Amino acid sequence: MNQLRELIGRIEGIDSTWVGMAWERQNCLTKPPGSLGLLEDIACRVAGIQKTLTPCVDRKRMVVFAADHGVTEEGVSPYPAEVTAQMVANFLRGGAAINAFARIAHAEVVVVDIGVKSPIPKVEDSQASVRFIQNPIRPGTRNFAQELALTEQETLDAILLGSKLACEAKEDEISLIGLGEMGIGNTTTAAAISAGLTGRSSAVVTGRGTGADDSIFALKQSIVDGAVRRHAARDAFSLLRAFGGLEIAGLVGLCLGAAVARIPIVIDGFITASAAALAVGMCPRAKEYMFAGHLSTEPGHRALLEFLEIRPILNLGMRLGEGTGAALAMNVIEAAVRGFVEMATFESAGVSDKQEVAKGVSR
Amino acid sequence: MNQLRELIGRIEGIDSTWVGMAWERQNCLTKPPGSLGLLEDIACRVAGIQKTLTPCVDRKRMVVFAADHGVTEEGVSPYPAEVTAQMVANFLRGGAAINAFARIAHAEVVVVDIGVKSPIPKVEDSQASVRFIQNPIRPGTRNFAQELALTEQETLDAILLGSKLACEAKEDEISLIGLGEMGIGNTTTAAAISAGLTGRSSAVVTGRGTGADDSIFALKQSIVDGAVRRHAARDAFSLLRAFGGLEIAGLVGLCLGAAVARIPIVIDGFITASAAALAVGMCPRAKEYMFAGHLSTEPGHRALLEFLEIRPILNLGMRLGEGTGAALAMNVIEAAVRGFVEMATFESAGVSDKQEVAKGVSR
Repeated sequence: MNQLRELIGRIEGIDSTWVGMAWERQNCLTKPPGSLGLLEDIACRVAGIQKTLTPCVDRKRMVVFAADHGVTEEGVSPYPAEVTAQMVANFLRGGAAINAFARIAHAEVVVVDIGVKSPIPKVEDSQASVRFIQNPIRPGTRNFAQELALTEQETLDAILLGSKLACEAKEDEISLIGLGEMGIGNTTTAAAISAGLTGRSSAVVTGRGTGADDSIFALKQSIVDGAVRRHAARDAFSLLRAFGGLEIAGLVGLCLGAAVARIPIVIDGFITASAAALAVGMCPRAKEYMFAGHLSTEPGHRALLEFLEIRPILNLGMRLGEGTGAALAMNVIEAAVRGFVEMATFESAGVSDKQEVAKGVSR
Repeated sequence: MNQLRELIGRIEGIDSTWVGMAWERQNCLTKPPGSLGLLEDIACRVAGIQKTLTPCVDRKRMVVFAADHGVTEEGVSPYPAEVTAQMVANFLRGGAAINAFARIAHAEVVVVDIGVKSPIPKVEDSQASVRFIQNPIRPGTRNFAQELALTEQETLDAILLGSKLACEAKEDEISLIGLGEMGIGNTTTAAAISAGLTGRSSAVVTGRGTGADDSIFALKQSIVDGAVRRHAARDAFSLLRAFGGLEIAGLVGLCLGAAVARIPIVIDGFITASAAALAVGMCPRAKEYMFAGHLSTEPGHRALLEFLEIRPILNLGMRLGEGTGAALAMNVIEAAVRGFVEMATFESAGVSDKQEVAKGVSR
């Protein structure tokens, strides 16, 4: 626990002086002030994170943690748990949605086996652009409907692996990190975390995940409800230990480590938002480094973004996970930042500003 | 008018057979069906437009029409009319928001002077990536608060210039066109068109544009209201002639020409949406080729998208125009299309589909 406390102690807030100077520049650019909406906030916050008036997010990396969930034994997902391992192989071959979207965002993809239970199918034709890190903490979590999902040490190990990957990203001069995940059953885990963390009822935060039918959905709700009732503790670490999953713990560490490294991160959907919310639960300042890529249709995602008070960038009716919403939003963040850096000012472009009207035009 | 009728007569609808086949493929890709939300619709519609299961939107072009508006004589904008010409020079130097966003979308920029009144400042350091077409139909429209903005011939000439540019895009193998515009005063014009076309009151469709204060805003509303009352005609061509502007007429022609050329187009904000709505008023089938890049905060934009029944891709609180929202949305459209083409199917990736659960898992 000392390592976690030490990690959190190294997180500083973003720099409000640079944010203020960025807003001054923002208001001189050749556009009516405010006319780029959310993009103006994004650019100024990145300036505050990077402490510069020439912020840059051109080196992007998606970190996709994969792990299994013991709670799938209860039958909470219509897909078999083997799909986690099969999808990891699909990521390595470059055939998944996240691969296509990462290519468009010019983002590297790092896939991390932090606890996949089934053997990962051998991939002959792996993509050179995809890096694979195999560091399973254990073969999936324990079934949180029956017992605690993780030991304290397993939880810590997974968090520290995530923070180490943030540290490596810093060494690789990565300027924007996207959060991704894969784990059959993990919407059940995220629902339990969300209910525990926000105090909202399990009915509000539990959704259908990857297509649960009515009977699976009812079962899922009752399992989340029972688990949240049993685990009274509301602090972030206890919730993470109680429900898992290993990929969520890795993401928590990545969020905390990115804040230490002053790298902005992009949350994806429900699962990554549950990790971000846990990280903020452990260290509120970590939030200043977070952008929300999109709003998914999974109901708990909205509850978590409201809890985090972060406005999502995109709202496209997506609910795929993998990091797809984060990868898509990276282009918007890059546009915000490049617009801020590359645009001319009224003065440099010789464009008449609004103020001149008061002097020059009588009506 | 025969040329316009002939142009409209050449527009065919998109191909529903290809759309249907695209949905079949969409449902085999390694993701839960429907989990990519709006992106799935986008990809299938582009497949129907291009008549292929390997759609492609990798060659993109922003076409930015610039023109002045006689109605600025009434004092409807806080910026002097000279800003239109000054911003054209800014576009040519690559210093505007649309330049930065087009670079991120890997889109060419074509700037068209279709009726700028003030002399365009000489640009020594113009960007090689920006093409400039000088073809002013006349030096701005007439003041529609006093008289008809355009003659029938001027209106036609501007429309035909736009359709010619769509034809050229086809020859250049452009696969996605974004609509852009610049014209001080043009939110007043677009408000008059919107009220005339949708039947909504001028109070609903008139906004503050590029930062009108209360007195300018009140004046603007009363001018729109008076103009709409005077011009009883509700057909698209009459409205365009009555209110202008030349850039809007050019955009109408571009929309119609793109539909003939079977090139998907991306609407930007309020001004380009007014042009798209006029084009649909002239030929309802043209709508099948249109995507709405974003929802701007200008109130008339929402009214027009509701009239068009097109769901916007982005909603970022933007109200800049120039084509900025369209350029940003191009990345999302490309992600939708490339995801569709590049993703593996459940079968090709060896990933277990949901159906197998019914067989293999008992609970």
